[in-house]
Amino acid sequence: MGANLDAVLDDLQGREAEHRAALAEFVAIPSVSTDPAHADDVRRAAAWIEARLRAVPQLDVERVETDRHPAVLARWDGAPGAPTVLVYGHMDVQPPDPLEAWDSPPFELTERDGRWYARGVSDDKASMLIPILVAEAFFRHGTPPVNLRLLFEAEEEIGSPHLPHLVRQRADDLACDVVLSADGGMWRADLPGLTTSARGMTALELRVRGPSKDLHSGRHGGAVQNPLHALATIVASLHDDDGRVAVDGFYDGVHDPSDERLAQLAALPFDEDAYLSAVGAPAAYGEAGYGTLARQWLRPTLEVNGVGGGYQGPGSKTVLPSDAFAKITCRLVDDQEPAQVADAVASHLHRACPVGVTIDVLRSERGAQAYVMPDDHPVLAAAESVLREVFDAEPVRVGMGGSVPITATFKEALGADTLFFSFSTADEDIHAPNEFYRPERFRAGLSAWARLWTRLAHDAHERTEA
Amino acid sequence: MGANLDAVLDDLQGREAEHRAALAEFVAIPSVSTDPAHADDVRRAAAWIEARLRAVPQLDVERVETDRHPAVLARWDGAPGAPTVLVYGHMDVQPPDPLEAWDSPPFELTERDGRWYARGVSDDKASMLIPILVAEAFFRHGTPPVNLRLLFEAEEEIGSPHLPHLVRQRADDLACDVVLSADGGMWRADLPGLTTSARGMTALELRVRGPSKDLHSGRHGGAVQNPLHALATIVASLHDDDGRVAVDGFYDGVHDPSDERLAQLAALPFDEDAYLSAVGAPAAYGEAGYGTLARQWLRPTLEVNGVGGGYQGPGSKTVLPSDAFAKITCRLVDDQEPAQVADAVASHLHRACPVGVTIDVLRSERGAQAYVMPDDHPVLAAAESVLREVFDAEPVRVGMGGSVPITATFKEALGADTLFFSFSTADEDIHAPNEFYRPERFRAGLSAWARLWTRLAHDAHERTEA
Repeated sequence: MGANLDAVLDDLQGREAEHRAALAEFVAIPSVSTDPAHADDVRRAAAWIEARLRAVPQLDVERVETDRHPAVLARWDGAPGAPTVLVYGHMDVQPPDPLEAWDSPPFELTERDGRWYARGVSDDKASMLIPILVAEAFFRHGTPPVNLRLLFEAEEEIGSPHLPHLVRQRADDLACDVVLSADGGMWRADLPGLTTSARGMTALELRVRGPSKDLHSGRHGGAVQNPLHALATIVASLHDDDGRVAVDGFYDGVHDPSDERLAQLAALPFDEDAYLSAVGAPAAYGEAGYGTLARQWLRPTLEVNGVGGGYQGPGSKTVLPSDAFAKITCRLVDDQEPAQVADAVASHLHRACPVGVTIDVLRSERGAQAYVMPDDHPVLAAAESVLREVFDAEPVRVGMGGSVPITATFKEALGADTLFFSFSTADEDIHAPNEFYRPERFRAGLSAWARLWTRLAHDAHERTEA
Repeated sequence: MGANLDAVLDDLQGREAEHRAALAEFVAIPSVSTDPAHADDVRRAAAWIEARLRAVPQLDVERVETDRHPAVLARWDGAPGAPTVLVYGHMDVQPPDPLEAWDSPPFELTERDGRWYARGVSDDKASMLIPILVAEAFFRHGTPPVNLRLLFEAEEEIGSPHLPHLVRQRADDLACDVVLSADGGMWRADLPGLTTSARGMTALELRVRGPSKDLHSGRHGGAVQNPLHALATIVASLHDDDGRVAVDGFYDGVHDPSDERLAQLAALPFDEDAYLSAVGAPAAYGEAGYGTLARQWLRPTLEVNGVGGGYQGPGSKTVLPSDAFAKITCRLVDDQEPAQVADAVASHLHRACPVGVTIDVLRSERGAQAYVMPDDHPVLAAAESVLREVFDAEPVRVGMGGSVPITATFKEALGADTLFFSFSTADEDIHAPNEFYRPERFRAGLSAWARLWTRLAHDAHERTEA
């Protein structure tokens, strides 16, 4: 029978030392998914999660092998009539390099100035441990109020190569009303919030080739096209003077933001000077006619991520190089199709290529559509009411400039929307040295997850009654 | 008394094995001036040359120390009333890397298919050994027809940092009517020629700075200026659609080539398709209104030699980098002043820098003015008549796209023009693996230098008599 929420909340509050010890064990496993030398550690992390879940006899637990790192899946269907939630998180982490920049060992949970430091503690180990601890607490006092699907992968940091196949193949087992992602991260540490959109992505690389070998720029300069000049011409042609992407067809499928959405952005407590100071940029810059948040969340972009060619060492070398390259990623919104955008950009690159050089355009195999959670999704309202209770503050709805390709996978394969319900925040130096997590957020997260499951069951029951 | 030219030519012809043995000894010394590990070898090369010169008792020989590698200077003033020539050459060489690309040991003179292979054999050891062997032959049979200044440096491959000071300081000892440079190289192997101009040079580097650290291009892309976009915009602004340098003031001091000069170029046996095939470029490209040779020799250029910024590894990384750089060299002609051109380019770079980033422009300390030997310089006519005799073909006058800063030094400090009288040719893979020299060019060079000195004395005498 359903556990009493207050009993569960009391239980969770009383186990702080135990929770911290569990988190310390989890972060001590260097589950660096990108490094083959850590493959066994990734497996140990999966085994640790699997063992933890198997300790709850009601859960139906399995390890799902892939060609690389395993995932762990658990199910419980003991709440007939109640909603089914799929909890998503990932147990792999980024490499800890550069090691010398850490103030404490990266794989040793260290408390300093009221923060917990460790590689992966924010992305995503603490945040994914929270729903496990909450499930354990519910089972100690009865049963959870919702049916559960727990899905933890170990390949998020390498682009989740096997997750889409797994989700599609196991769609029946994973069928749910909503996905609750323990991965994501809140916008701000001082303000509860929900991320309701993420941009899509597509990537390309171009290589401009001129002479078949590097030439002496004194002897040959001026007589043949310089690939570095050609590359600059091509890259410069990708944006107009108003900061818009100057690629024909790029904006197909992009909708003008509604006045309501723009008003929402305008109402957010965003201090542009503080933002610019934090990133160290001398000025804001972007597509004319939009503010910084709209540029980050609502508008598509084309960004060059790297360029190279010719001599890069100290001093000068009088070379006219054989080739030069640029790497590009586009962030997509609304109904932009990754493949169509890549086509449009590739066509533009070919057209913009000057005489005297040739161009090759490589397209990335992966692409992701933008994701938007409908404003009127009932889970959003439920989550907001929970955050209001836990933080005693009005939560904000924000967007995400980055991409979360799995949201599109869940939507397509399971028909389910994804609520980002993570208690990490965007300032916790994920992927960088001295990654940290806030203990008070850990406590808030435990309370919020317990309340959210309860609220979802309650709201669904109300809707059925109505 | 003056030696008989025929006797000297016979003498030189009869010593092929001895000359080859001397060259083999000289190239066996790995006098790599840029590598501190070879400092003693550079010194050994200087000692080898010094000893060779001291073996001629009439010569006044000294080693001139600098802060790095020594030069060797020799003088003979036994031809009163005859012209004084300053012979220039360099005994240092480029590093042999990549070693694995050599078909025979780089510091072992190896004959293969009628060519002599060794590092430095073409640049400049064989060519500088020639006038020494010629001087020795003259002294064996009497005395040379001209007064001699022999100046061999060991820092040419590192930019001759101490030569300008040495020449200025010893201007009285080096006073001469003309400089004969054993360094330079002929345009073509199948055609005798004289290089009568070299372009000047100035170098700059720019660095564009945006955010104070690398940012995630998903989260921040579109909201701040991307230094890679700014760099492309700046670099693309440096040329117009006609291939002209679009920098205000860049062409100050540049003269339109005379119809006569253009007619000279048009008369040269230049096969553009063969050239493009040799450099592997898909098409010729450059300043509109000029042909390939005019673009290489008569027109100034601005070439980007390297660009870099952001992620350069395999695959993609979603970074919006903190900064990006480009390295630039300009080749100058006519009366362009290196410092003024650098000023003009720097001003343009600052003006072209878009909002949202800052720019730093570094200027190289070194610059060189263009060098042109006057068309009517009597030494040119003398050299042409010698080449006509030695090669039994009409020599051509050509330009050089690269720069030879020492010519400006000799002109300024000694008031002397420089004739490039080298028997290397431009195709001998200098600075690359399997550098080679042509033995028949070595023989031609010995004959030509002996004849040139004789001709210069003869012509001067005729002028005095007239």
